[in-house]
Amino acid sequence: MRLLLKNADILAWQDKRYKTIRGGFLGIDGDTIDYIGEAKPEAAYDSEKDMRGKLLIPGLIDCHCHAAMTLLRGIGSDLPLDRWLYEAVFPVEDRMKTDDFIAGNELAVLELLASGVTSFSDMYMEPATLIELNEQVGMKVNLTRVVQAFDPSEPPEQNFRVKESLALFDQFHGVQDGRVRVDFGVHAEYTTNDAVTRYYADQIRPYREKGARVQLHLSETRKEHEECVARHGLTPAAWFESMGIFDLPAAAAHCVWCTHGDLDILKTHGVSPIHNPTSNLKLGSGFAPVPEMLERGLNVALGTDGAASNNNLNMFEEMHIAAIGINGYLMDPELMPPSAILRMATLNGARLQGREDTGCLAVGMKADVVAIDMDRPHLYPAFEPLPMLVYSAQASDVVMTMVDGKILYENGEYLTIDRDKALYDAKKAVERLYGGH
Amino acid sequence: MRLLLKNADILAWQDKRYKTIRGGFLGIDGDTIDYIGEAKPEAAYDSEKDMRGKLLIPGLIDCHCHAAMTLLRGIGSDLPLDRWLYEAVFPVEDRMKTDDFIAGNELAVLELLASGVTSFSDMYMEPATLIELNEQVGMKVNLTRVVQAFDPSEPPEQNFRVKESLALFDQFHGVQDGRVRVDFGVHAEYTTNDAVTRYYADQIRPYREKGARVQLHLSETRKEHEECVARHGLTPAAWFESMGIFDLPAAAAHCVWCTHGDLDILKTHGVSPIHNPTSNLKLGSGFAPVPEMLERGLNVALGTDGAASNNNLNMFEEMHIAAIGINGYLMDPELMPPSAILRMATLNGARLQGREDTGCLAVGMKADVVAIDMDRPHLYPAFEPLPMLVYSAQASDVVMTMVDGKILYENGEYLTIDRDKALYDAKKAVERLYGGH
Repeated sequence: MRLLLKNADILAWQDKRYKTIRGGFLGIDGDTIDYIGEAKPEAAYDSEKDMRGKLLIPGLIDCHCHAAMTLLRGIGSDLPLDRWLYEAVFPVEDRMKTDDFIAGNELAVLELLASGVTSFSDMYMEPATLIELNEQVGMKVNLTRVVQAFDPSEPPEQNFRVKESLALFDQFHGVQDGRVRVDFGVHAEYTTNDAVTRYYADQIRPYREKGARVQLHLSETRKEHEECVARHGLTPAAWFESMGIFDLPAAAAHCVWCTHGDLDILKTHGVSPIHNPTSNLKLGSGFAPVPEMLERGLNVALGTDGAASNNNLNMFEEMHIAAIGINGYLMDPELMPPSAILRMATLNGARLQGREDTGCLAVGMKADVVAIDMDRPHLYPAFEPLPMLVYSAQASDVVMTMVDGKILYENGEYLTIDRDKALYDAKKAVERLYGGH
Repeated sequence: MRLLLKNADILAWQDKRYKTIRGGFLGIDGDTIDYIGEAKPEAAYDSEKDMRGKLLIPGLIDCHCHAAMTLLRGIGSDLPLDRWLYEAVFPVEDRMKTDDFIAGNELAVLELLASGVTSFSDMYMEPATLIELNEQVGMKVNLTRVVQAFDPSEPPEQNFRVKESLALFDQFHGVQDGRVRVDFGVHAEYTTNDAVTRYYADQIRPYREKGARVQLHLSETRKEHEECVARHGLTPAAWFESMGIFDLPAAAAHCVWCTHGDLDILKTHGVSPIHNPTSNLKLGSGFAPVPEMLERGLNVALGTDGAASNNNLNMFEEMHIAAIGINGYLMDPELMPPSAILRMATLNGARLQGREDTGCLAVGMKADVVAIDMDRPHLYPAFEPLPMLVYSAQASDVVMTMVDGKILYENGEYLTIDRDKALYDAKKAVERLYGGH
């Protein structure tokens, strides 16, 4: 099946930079882009789709998400941080069962697709529920079953999370034509111990050859960072390095309190930091040193974090706040050029996920394409698409989300997931989890 | 004409706090709310409108806008701040003529209405164009013809801006059933001088009895603040006080660099600070001390600033960034409760504008009502409407904007302005102003 998107403005990737093609053509052969240009291609296509007035951009990649936490959206928002976690979040999570994870994932998928996300990295319980859902939905997702260790007397080889994490990789890595990738994961330094983490690092090291990667939380709050130093004499980054976890390519969420030395460690091991600006601001965690990360050539990606601490899954908001927040903090309006922001939300995310064949619109890349409707008053005039995307555009300007050449969302309609069923399932889950509400 | 909005969730204002009424009724008699309750009112209404699944909130009030700058959206966004102003913004503004102001205002109105703004304060050239447009549109707007003085040898009584400012008040204050209010205005300390400002203060003082108010820019950037201190030995707030400008109730945009002493001055004179978080972050100006302002009981309102430095007119984004930005800066997640944010965007704005009869949903208040469609995946679950509004909601969730009991926007349709004509006018203006583009 060959499809030609015609008369569209296209934010193409050429010679390592963005180039805008006006009123152009983007050809797709199966799941792959086979033509981008101003002139109509000579080759024949099975069908043509008129995209006049639309801007085609690469699909957005949300590199840090806890999808099923959509069911915890906004709970306990009047509580301080620790009471919010211990009195609001944890008790609900303790009650969550398989059907709840399914429902929370469905709700997240509705939101992600409608806001132009084609691929995301998820870190939450019962990841198999998301893999099964995605069989039908058709997004790209990197999942992990993170390791935690709460009982210091437990022999590492008995840790059931380690076993489940390894089994998940063996069973699911690369399924769904590679759209599902299984990552290894350590929740964070403060929720594990040396013995289990070292043991886990040894277990996962041989998987490096199979393209395995790691997800973890790193130096999100000052308290977490400083308590680690007090406990181990090492920053969280140095501790993970010493445990051998960075022997695999890793993705480190937050990195708000990373020191200069920590950034050197990340650079040495090819660790990709994930910036989660909304969550970091809302929870009062602080400002990640993103300009310094970019200056050092780190592969910085972008994420929403869970809907409980955001409170939505909106990569346009993340782009916007990533673009302006640090300007205000460091009082320099030129720190974050729009092209760097879009790369963080697309190309860098693809690299972080181990997906070399997506993240930009170029011939030979997978057709992960999002269409923005330019016929919106708040997008006019749009002299340059990059500042428009980063400063003016809204998630609701997305009118098409395509993954591997297949349209999953268009003009408010979901083509691979039943919106009504998803919302019904979410309501049932909320009744189960919260009773009275 | 009596209209009953039925089966709606209503964010009502009762006993000086927000109260959510589920599946309730809001009755409107002409331009005024005459009933809010859970039970259907006994009185008869001429027509009923089913608002099931919608949340009714007070109309949003954008207290600092330069509406026609929509035509400068995103220009020169790759330039540093001073070059952006002098090389990109000023040359275009110099070319702008009446038709361009009309077109820019039309474009702004499309954006404001679609995002739930019922009233705004505008500070830009040729304010009469906006008054004329609003005759047809029906929003509420406070306008000003600001005073500036560039030639120190000019006798104050010759300053044509002073004359125009006074004439604008005499001609238009209170027209359109009070929907149009004319404010006096001084652009900023750095664009005027002592003689003209003192003279202007003397001229406008007698208007205090007529309810006149003042708009101005205050301590937006560190440079501006420090240069004022160097020039006058006074901070901008102290300088405006010494000039007599604060003898009228004033609205001071930005206030990023206000000192503790400045906040005392604002408190003493009943000056309302306007917080413009997006613009302050994007331009690298810094973080206004909003928590301290609120603690002192200042009437803090919210504004978008112009689309050239934002780059849109989206009060939902302002609420969101006002809610989370300062949390991150001061590392305290409890600084800005959602109820304070909504008050800044509504009630406080109404007070700032001198409109005592709007800003909240209560019997006897004007029917300035916005409906939010709750049937959106990113708004579910919404246990409490306030955090939902501030952290999750999008401007595009607005499905109705009503001013004085009259629906101006509903489900994407504009009822008092021709969308196509407005966009056509904007395109023509862009061609005039930018040629090649």
